[in-house]
Formats: sequence, structure tokens, C-alpha cells
Amino acid sequence: MGEFELIARHFTRPAPAPEAVVLGVGDDCALLRPTPGHLLAISTDMLVEGRHFFAGAEPEALGHKALAVNLSDLAAMGARPLGFTLALALPAADEAWLAAFARGLFALADAHACPLVGGDTTRGPLNLCITVFGERRPGQALRRNAARAGDELWLSGRTGEARLALALRRGEAWARGELAAVADRMDRPTPRLALGQALAATPGVHAALDVSDGLAGDIGHILEASGVGAEIEADALPVAPALQALDRPHRLDCLLAGGDDYELLFTADPAAHAAVRAAGAQTGVAVTRIGRITAAPGLRVLDAQRQAVPLRTRGFDHFAAD
Amino acid sequence: MGEFELIARHFTRPAPAPEAVVLGVGDDCALLRPTPGHLLAISTDMLVEGRHFFAGAEPEALGHKALAVNLSDLAAMGARPLGFTLALALPAADEAWLAAFARGLFALADAHACPLVGGDTTRGPLNLCITVFGERRPGQALRRNAARAGDELWLSGRTGEARLALALRRGEAWARGELAAVADRMDRPTPRLALGQALAATPGVHAALDVSDGLAGDIGHILEASGVGAEIEADALPVAPALQALDRPHRLDCLLAGGDDYELLFTADPAAHAAVRAAGAQTGVAVTRIGRITAAPGLRVLDAQRQAVPLRTRGFDHFAAD
Repeated sequence: MGEFELIARHFTRPAPAPEAVVLGVGDDCALLRPTPGHLLAISTDMLVEGRHFFAGAEPEALGHKALAVNLSDLAAMGARPLGFTLALALPAADEAWLAAFARGLFALADAHACPLVGGDTTRGPLNLCITVFGERRPGQALRRNAARAGDELWLSGRTGEARLALALRRGEAWARGELAAVADRMDRPTPRLALGQALAATPGVHAALDVSDGLAGDIGHILEASGVGAEIEADALPVAPALQALDRPHRLDCLLAGGDDYELLFTADPAAHAAVRAAGAQTGVAVTRIGRITAAPGLRVLDAQRQAVPLRTRGFDHFAAD
Repeated sequence: MGEFELIARHFTRPAPAPEAVVLGVGDDCALLRPTPGHLLAISTDMLVEGRHFFAGAEPEALGHKALAVNLSDLAAMGARPLGFTLALALPAADEAWLAAFARGLFALADAHACPLVGGDTTRGPLNLCITVFGERRPGQALRRNAARAGDELWLSGRTGEARLALALRRGEAWARGELAAVADRMDRPTPRLALGQALAATPGVHAALDVSDGLAGDIGHILEASGVGAEIEADALPVAPALQALDRPHRLDCLLAGGDDYELLFTADPAAHAAVRAAGAQTGVAVTRIGRITAAPGLRVLDAQRQAVPLRTRGFDHFAAD
């Protein structure tokens, strides 16, 4: 089977395209018509075998995850998805793999009305690069540089389960529990799109990002961009049942430096507290106040006695010595 | 050096961003403001080491080429560039390599006022994935499905030199000539952006694509999408001086099935002949009438006696048996 036939079989779909897609897969470019007056939000993520996922990872989950991590960036900006492109390097044209990958990819794409509009396939070490497009009214995008001293610090959902799943798969000695209870949190993250859009429309919500490389590391991007600091109350962090069995240091590692969480971390004026809770309730996502933004720079993680909790690891860095 | 420092050093630039870029590198998403009423054109291409370029390829040229092949897709649509994202997998964080790569990349980006607006870097087998965004007035995009029987068939520039450069590098027995005379045509292709935009604004220009996988193969995309056929006059194809020394079969192979040409192949009403010539003259790109579109399906390549020229190879297919 040739490249063009391969593309046609798995990535061309008869489904009617949303109105914004003037031209989809199959020409030199896709053509989109954004809503007049809106800004276009764009994000790109590359997933490499052996780095972002294990060799032999289940292709349906991989299709889901490759798109989910990109949609999560749109969610963090409060943007509504318009479409995405997929560039795919494959070691071989494996029909069964492609069919399963496309199934996982399109199930998530359909759930968010985010069609595939273009792409590229080639032979090479397995590599998935998705670029996603969304839109947002000007002035409503949630940016990293908008946190203010005095803001409450909020987290959607829970962090740490994906890190525990990784540890169980790797057989790390400290890990406890059933992989089945946490595997989906690693393999099938849920982009918080509805919540992100609701927050962007909530007055008083200031800065946001999606937590992908660990909470304690990623928050640094907000602090740096906004010129502020933060306190996180370690005991305020929501803890999944699967993490209860861990000793406290490893539990905190998972919560604060796990990575692969794809939850929204955001700041809001305390006066918006009830509105933030309402946005969470309206979109079916738990939101938890986990600390506050301070004028003093730096991040402090405090226990119930307001003593500093030592952080043993920071966010994941692809080029740190390892 | 860590991932974030690496990004900051080589891919964050102080240059003032064009007005369309509301937010560039450094947040969850980039934010663009397309011109009101315009359509957004999007294309993505992935370049893999050992597949699209030799291991050890000169990084400055690679930076140029990775963006050029994407801009070529915008050119084929007649779109004006707005910006691009870069996702990059690197085996290691090699400072000198990155500096040279960024130099080549940004030189071309600056020449076309097409800023880097976002990206992703990770460790992995060398892989470059660029997604490019442009815009075009509705109704002026050059699509593949718009060729009409009776149209003249046109080619910008010349094909075949990149294929000869590849053959000389590989030491293929039939190749003749100096690599230096053709290397840039393989390493530093010129996206025909100004010509594409001029053609899109020329009444009577119908279909277009950029020739990347060989003229005789790529034309099939226009023929299939438009439900037409074509005749190419072999002796009308422009021949670079470097190709004159080749025997006729290999010369025709280079011209018709070379690949990596990044020239525009387009069709236009014969009444637009002078306007097409003017668009070429105005943008400084040679344009040559190389045949015509026919109602009868299929592609025929004819010699001066209107005898069929046998085609030994077709366009490049990344998953064909090889």
C-alpha cells in the first residue's frame, strides 16, 4: 500500500466538516474560516517513541493521547478547537496499527468537533506531531503573564496518577497499587476544554496553563511571566485514592512533580471564588484552591504548619542530564 | 543546558513581531489575528533524517529547507505567510548545530515576514516538523480541483536539478557534472511565494500545486481532483544547463520524476497566457507552458513527433516497496 492510499484509507473521512473548514485533507493547504473578530490560537506537540510513550504502546490510546495533549494547550488558553494537522513518521505501514491509532484519534476529535484538516506521513522512527488550531474572543485568552499577587491558585482535577502509572509500569520500588486504577490517567488524559472556555469567560480569572511537566515546575512559567511568586498548600492538593497508599514523600513527588497530568493550573481574584466553583460545577470538573499568588518571588510549598516541604524533583526537562 | 533555556537561546527573538502575531513563543498557544474576511491556509511537513536529508546534513541548509518546503505549500495555494510552528526532536542538545539551524531557518523566515510563533523540542531521532499558516482572500485560493479541459499547463522555474544533486551525492553511475552546480537546488529550494500570490490574483489561473515528489506523479493529484487528463510536451520542459550532459532517458527522469523541486505546476485558461507571463516577469520567476489539460483522463508525455515518452519512474512514495 502506497503513501497516498494509506492516507486516504485511514485519514480521509466522509463526515461533514464543520462550517469553519472550507477545505480539509488533500490539497497543498487546508483552508479554515475563523469566526470574524476572533483570535486564532495555535499549539504544537511532538511525541517520540521511547520518550513520550513506551515502544509498543497501544495505538488506540496513542491516537487519543497525541491529540489530547494538544487540546490541553487550547484548554489552557480558553480556546475553542477548530481543527488539527497530523504529521506522522512510521517505521512501516502497519494497517492494524494505523486503524487503531486513527480510531483513538478520531474518537477524541469527534468528541470536541475538532476535525483533521491536513497532514503528512513518512517513513521514519515513530514520531507523532500534531498542531492544533482554536479560536477565542480577543481579551478572553488565558495567558501565563496575567497572575496577580493576592490571586487564589486553583487546580482542575488531580495530579500524580499518571506518574504512579509510569512507576508501576517501570517497576519502581516505591510504587504501590494496581496499574489498572491509574493507567488511563497516563494513557488517555482528558483535555479540560469546556472548563478552560468557561474560565476564560469568567471575570477575575487571570492566568492559566496546563500542567504537563509537573505542577511545581510548570507553575514557574506563570510566576516568571507574571513577575510574582506563589505558595502551594501541600495538604490542599487533591489526592486520588490510588495515591493514598504511598508514603508521603513519594505521594508529594507524584502530586507536585509527576508530569503527564494535563490539568489546568490557574489563578483568579478571590472575589471570583464562587464563579470559579460554578465554572467547575457547570463543566463537571473538580476545581480545588491549592494556594495563592504572592508578591514575593519564588515558589514555596508549605505543610499544615506552614513549614517548607522539600521538593526532591522538579518538572521534566527533555534535555536535562539523565 | 535545559530544554527551556535551549528554546530561549535559539528560538526566542527580540525582533518586533508582525501585527498579525498577538502572542508568539512562550505560552500554551500562540495567538494570531488573521486579516478580517480572509481564509486561513495551513500546511504541515515532517522531515526525517536519513529519509528527507542525509545524516550529517549541514544544519543551516536544513533550517532553510525545513521551512522552504512548507512555504512552498502556501505558495501553491497563493497564500501570504503569517507564521509557523516548529517541533524538533534532537538526539542531543548540540549548541553549534542549533545555532546554525536557527540561522538558516530565520534567514528564510525573515525574508518572507513569516515569524516563528510556537514550537516544541524534545529528545529523539532527528525529526523536524513545521506547520505553516498563511492567509488568502476567499475565492482566490489556488486549488487542485479547478483545472479545466483546454487549460494551458505551466511550470515555474525548472525541475530535475535536485534529483541530479542527489544522484551525484549517492554516486549513481549515470550522473554527470559538478555537484556544486546543483547542490543548492537540493539543499536550499526557493518557495515561489510571490509568484503564487500573483497567480492567485490573476483571473483565469485555475489549479496549482507545488511539485515535491516529481512532476509526472504530482500532476496526478490535479488530474484526479479535477477529473481531467493532461499532455506534457517533453521538449517544452525547461532544461537546466547542468542537465544537458545527461543522456535523454535520465534527463527525462530528472525532469519528470526527480522530486524535491518545489516549483509550481499550474493551469490557466489560454486567454490568460499573457497575464501568466506578466505574473512571472513581475515576480522574477521563469514560467513555461509545458502542455495542456485534456478532457480525456490520464497523463500523456509526448515527444516532438507526438509519440508517447515512456516514464520509467513515478513520483516518490514514502511507503512504496523499496
